[in-house]
Amino acid sequence: MDKQHKIAAVHKYMEAFSNADMGLIREIYADDAVVEDPVGSEPYVGIDAIVGFYEEAFATGAKIALVGDVRCAGNAAAFAFDVIMEGVDISPIDVFEFNEAGKVVQMRAYWG
Amino acid sequence: MDKQHKIAAVHKYMEAFSNADMGLIREIYADDAVVEDPVGSEPYVGIDAIVGFYEEAFATGAKIALVGDVRCAGNAAAFAFDVIMEGVDISPIDVFEFNEAGKVVQMRAYWG
Repeated sequence: MDKQHKIAAVHKYMEAFSNADMGLIREIYADDAVVEDPVGSEPYVGIDAIVGFYEEAFATGAKIALVGDVRCAGNAAAFAFDVIMEGVDISPIDVFEFNEAGKVVQMRAYWG
Repeated sequence: MDKQHKIAAVHKYMEAFSNADMGLIREIYADDAVVEDPVGSEPYVGIDAIVGFYEEAFATGAKIALVGDVRCAGNAAAFAFDVIMEGVDISPIDVFEFNEAGKVVQMRAYWG
């Protein structure tokens, strides 16, 4: 899969948080995607559960800002970012895995 | 698993490169570990194949330096680092997955 497509998906993800844009979340994720945020917690399975997760995240007013480059490899992209939110100091690393249609089928967030 | 243990393993990994110390590699990895570096390439399966991989890596003289914190979540740790080597400009993100004995059973490197 095209590296530029993966990088663009990550930038759309940042934009989704900037504008609380659920349309972008639906555009990025496959219908059968699984989100594990953070890794080790109960995953959100399927787009409806995932939208519910981001509704809560957007409601906090948190924004996110990329730190460093998007690292693309195989069918995946990994990226570090800061969460920008009063009283919160988290800098996660997320990994997106893409399907052949270019949609994210798995997201795993590492932040402890 | 203890967060401090995972952070210590990542620091040992940096040190292994600094000193070309294969003893540390053998200490970090489980015997049945799998290394996929970069993601999408043929994985190295088992400690012998993994040692072979690091022998080649150490022979290049490359050192590595952590960028930002080690992000721990569940049984995993993700970390960004710079590869310090003449003519090379790579800043991968690696993900370690640990077994219950505290050894790394899977390493996946994202750097394209």
